[in-house]
Amino acid sequence: MPKSYLVRTELERILSTLGEGDTVPPERELAARFEVSRETVRQALHELLVEGRIERRGRGTVVSQPKLTQPLSLKSYTEGALSQGRVPARLLVTWEDVIGDDELCEELGLPPGSTVMHLERVLLADGERIGLESTYLPKSRFGEFTETFDPGTSLYAAIRASGVEFASATERIETVLASPREAGLLESTTAMPMLLLHRRTLDTEGVPIERVRALYRGDRIAFVATLRE
Amino acid sequence: MPKSYLVRTELERILSTLGEGDTVPPERELAARFEVSRETVRQALHELLVEGRIERRGRGTVVSQPKLTQPLSLKSYTEGALSQGRVPARLLVTWEDVIGDDELCEELGLPPGSTVMHLERVLLADGERIGLESTYLPKSRFGEFTETFDPGTSLYAAIRASGVEFASATERIETVLASPREAGLLESTTAMPMLLLHRRTLDTEGVPIERVRALYRGDRIAFVATLRE
Repeated sequence: MPKSYLVRTELERILSTLGEGDTVPPERELAARFEVSRETVRQALHELLVEGRIERRGRGTVVSQPKLTQPLSLKSYTEGALSQGRVPARLLVTWEDVIGDDELCEELGLPPGSTVMHLERVLLADGERIGLESTYLPKSRFGEFTETFDPGTSLYAAIRASGVEFASATERIETVLASPREAGLLESTTAMPMLLLHRRTLDTEGVPIERVRALYRGDRIAFVATLRE
Repeated sequence: MPKSYLVRTELERILSTLGEGDTVPPERELAARFEVSRETVRQALHELLVEGRIERRGRGTVVSQPKLTQPLSLKSYTEGALSQGRVPARLLVTWEDVIGDDELCEELGLPPGSTVMHLERVLLADGERIGLESTYLPKSRFGEFTETFDPGTSLYAAIRASGVEFASATERIETVLASPREAGLLESTTAMPMLLLHRRTLDTEGVPIERVRALYRGDRIAFVATLRE
């Protein structure tokens, strides 16, 4: 049995005796207790940190609350968070009109050079920053949002209220590291693995509604999907 | 514009002029060309490495081939890789009978203390190690596999050939770091973000077929899903 495995198993045992918010014994104490190097303990604690089992608080380390589990579906972030008993919120970072490049215009079914609305928001759950979402919408279709949409509320609710019905989406899921800017906006670090989702949604006529790039903190969120034949 | 953003943009431009396997200019040369610190260049290169855009080869860095894009579906790894024009293979790491703990037995619909087959394999695409899959199967249902199944072949094909039909699966997707053992088996590092999938599949009668824990190299694979209302 490698030492790293034994340390991990022992740490799991200790965590199972602690509750949310309880303090984890310091690295030095754990190294002495397990009779291993501080480096071995540090590696195991870092794994648990990335998994969202523990988190830094002030100068100490505490047990985290469970990850937010978000269904992979056409439901909005808002609905997903509420279904988990979490309070969703959004902070506006950027709201601008841009000239779409060829790829973006094609994905949105627009002529080259079309104007596209770009909405970038930080997604929060119970006040915690867990995601950064960039949405691109055709200005020609959703231009009224500049006047009517409150960026602190659900975008999907506003799209539905405008009479547009979501029918399908393709979603690409990968893992990346945040850029320094993104890490700052998410109050995380450039060493923390993130889940990156690219989504394109279509309405019932097959017309593209939006293109989305969403970055989620890997330590705070997991996705679940139900697959059928 | 932060320097990190400019460096990233310039690197993207350089990569767009290079082909698969071409050498990326060394860090020192890039730092001089962009008039930034080597640390800034290193951070940007590390992001590209995690995204699988570039990879280390010997003492240099080269442009990677695109990530394998795997559909989130009831199809097997084999079918997904083949549909992308990649040659799938599997290396057996562990094949053992274990006494399932209470959670595992419940998830597999077995009485507590049942014997479970555990099959752990490295998944390869074109000879490259991209995933590590641990499958747990009820011994009572698939015990014959010990005699008949070649672990170098598709497990899903063998399950189907035994008359069992896949009907649905629930899949949980998150990002984690590999343990030292896992990083070794995947010829990767403990700093590389991985995609972790937990899957439970059911047959047409709603009886659990298997529980799977699969770890995929975040720099070599992405998942895609099609969602419908």
